[in-house]
Amino acid sequence: MRALTVRPGTAGTLAVETIPDPEPGPAELLVEGLAIGVCGTDKEIVRGEYGWAPEAPDAEGRLVLGHESLGRVLRAPDGSGFGAGDLVAGVVRRPDPEPCGACAHDEWDMCRNGRYTERGIKELDGYGSERWTVPAKYAVRVADHLGLAGVLMEPTSVVAKAWEQVDRVGERAWFEPRTALVTGAGPIGLLAAMIGVQRGLDVHVLDLVADGPKPDLVRDLGATYHHTSVEEIARTARPDVVLEATGVGKLVFEAMAATSAYGVVCLTGVSSGGRQLPIDAGALNRELVLENDAVVGSVNANLRHYRAAADALAAADLAWLERLITRRVPLQQAASAFEAGPTDVKVVIELADPGSEAGAT
Amino acid sequence: MRALTVRPGTAGTLAVETIPDPEPGPAELLVEGLAIGVCGTDKEIVRGEYGWAPEAPDAEGRLVLGHESLGRVLRAPDGSGFGAGDLVAGVVRRPDPEPCGACAHDEWDMCRNGRYTERGIKELDGYGSERWTVPAKYAVRVADHLGLAGVLMEPTSVVAKAWEQVDRVGERAWFEPRTALVTGAGPIGLLAAMIGVQRGLDVHVLDLVADGPKPDLVRDLGATYHHTSVEEIARTARPDVVLEATGVGKLVFEAMAATSAYGVVCLTGVSSGGRQLPIDAGALNRELVLENDAVVGSVNANLRHYRAAADALAAADLAWLERLITRRVPLQQAASAFEAGPTDVKVVIELADPGSEAGAT
Repeated sequence: MRALTVRPGTAGTLAVETIPDPEPGPAELLVEGLAIGVCGTDKEIVRGEYGWAPEAPDAEGRLVLGHESLGRVLRAPDGSGFGAGDLVAGVVRRPDPEPCGACAHDEWDMCRNGRYTERGIKELDGYGSERWTVPAKYAVRVADHLGLAGVLMEPTSVVAKAWEQVDRVGERAWFEPRTALVTGAGPIGLLAAMIGVQRGLDVHVLDLVADGPKPDLVRDLGATYHHTSVEEIARTARPDVVLEATGVGKLVFEAMAATSAYGVVCLTGVSSGGRQLPIDAGALNRELVLENDAVVGSVNANLRHYRAAADALAAADLAWLERLITRRVPLQQAASAFEAGPTDVKVVIELADPGSEAGAT
Repeated sequence: MRALTVRPGTAGTLAVETIPDPEPGPAELLVEGLAIGVCGTDKEIVRGEYGWAPEAPDAEGRLVLGHESLGRVLRAPDGSGFGAGDLVAGVVRRPDPEPCGACAHDEWDMCRNGRYTERGIKELDGYGSERWTVPAKYAVRVADHLGLAGVLMEPTSVVAKAWEQVDRVGERAWFEPRTALVTGAGPIGLLAAMIGVQRGLDVHVLDLVADGPKPDLVRDLGATYHHTSVEEIARTARPDVVLEATGVGKLVFEAMAATSAYGVVCLTGVSSGGRQLPIDAGALNRELVLENDAVVGSVNANLRHYRAAADALAAADLAWLERLITRRVPLQQAASAFEAGPTDVKVVIELADPGSEAGAT
């Protein structure tokens, strides 16, 4: 079968290779890969800046890429809760082998020792192949009607976790948020805005661009699009919640200062360091203390969050979700999926052989 | 009766004045004031930099100082749960008049609109007088055996709230902290360390000084004293929890970066702004996100926290608590309590007339 592979640590190694078909274990599903989504982490891996190949000698330093998955079950063990034809997504992270207390409680997203593994990122082959297997425990059902939009499951799980963090941190005392600011209108920001609107919040989204699909995508949710600044937005609508999805250091600190009293800022954007910003640390600390503000970082997702994501996607407007997928690339042309297009939101690589009849849509 | 007063907004107005004895309302206790503790906020008020006088015309811009209180009940309404002779402390903050959702839920410490009032700080006379009244609802019983050490109730309530914030933020997922770092060995830091040790944590305390009473106070708790740096401590004992009690901007940011994965930093120190620090905002954001770290500001306390403080003080070693009170000043010499002494931890102003037989000790 064909698979999208890379040699982590070495740029320019992205390839479509033929590798052996996988053999499902007794508790595993055999899945026909339909599509993978491309995110910033994939781009980092393709640039040779992130990622770890499986340690098995026959992997020869090769990693099958793809952690945002969508597939159709070909064969499922009896009693697994899955059957042939089901649309599924696979969970990305697996517990560390030790396991730490968090992993032992199935909260691998909160792994303490960093020895977790991740499909398509860290020591486990990803979902970017025509067939893949997954333990039934780490598969999540995608509503049939979603079709290709089901590939949004993984980024939605990250967003569902972020909202859960906001809830749980907010609920340390009385908490009835009304206004949310989402910084960044990429897939994470847009899905965060979608869930915010589903929760009945007055949602504001900030991004840099004034054109392309983002402003309309935000407006069509019933949210407000801004291409001004955090400070400008905070002047008229001090947010109770900020969901930060850019990782831009300056925005992160502006977000911390922009909340209403008892504000909760959830950081989800993975930034790179190396640039110093002048920050009035005393004033920021004073504001966090006197307003009982909270800031919480959030990465990855566990099964609870995938299930919340499945609910959020099932409740969403399908046509809106489909508009998030702004480009579809066949596996054989996968390299082009890693080049940024001017109006890209989510780029998807379709895995099904064009000659086959299978497909999500 | 005598009272310690100040004209908020004007430095040099601290005075011991004779004012009318208070008359308790039907649901109020009449209390003999025994002592007030002095903290940084009191010093800010005395310097004319903070504080608001009661708005009543007869207040004439005068505020009775004192929010860290200890008194003995002289008269209590039937059914109030208090009786003559009880040691009590009064709660500092009162709900805003509107009230906001938090105040309506008796969580005035999380007030959203800033219209709360505070005894001895904001629009309500404090506890720095020979007699005071307090609604039974806002009085908290102090264990008899504590005597003068009961004046530590209010700072302990602030610390009890901070620990509750750590718990509630930490418990958003699996959480079994083992190591805590407390930055600053003033009264808040020392009481935070005390509660940390009561919880069975391995507690490290960082302060600048190498001499005076602080190192021994820390060691006698069974905690470890450091006068190095956050970075140095983190090299050997990465803390699961940091309780920041200095408000020093540099330390605040070092604390955020020093935690173990899933670290919780609770900020309690009220700093002043105006000084820019160069901070690698991108690197800090990346660490918060990838480690699922949390930072939470905490100020003030509600009744739940006063009750937790009463339990913590009752369970503490009395001789150790008494050593926190490094200086006692009679009301008539109150001004000297606001001048920093080289070995001060907590300075207390004793309110009882030296000629009277009453007193906490």
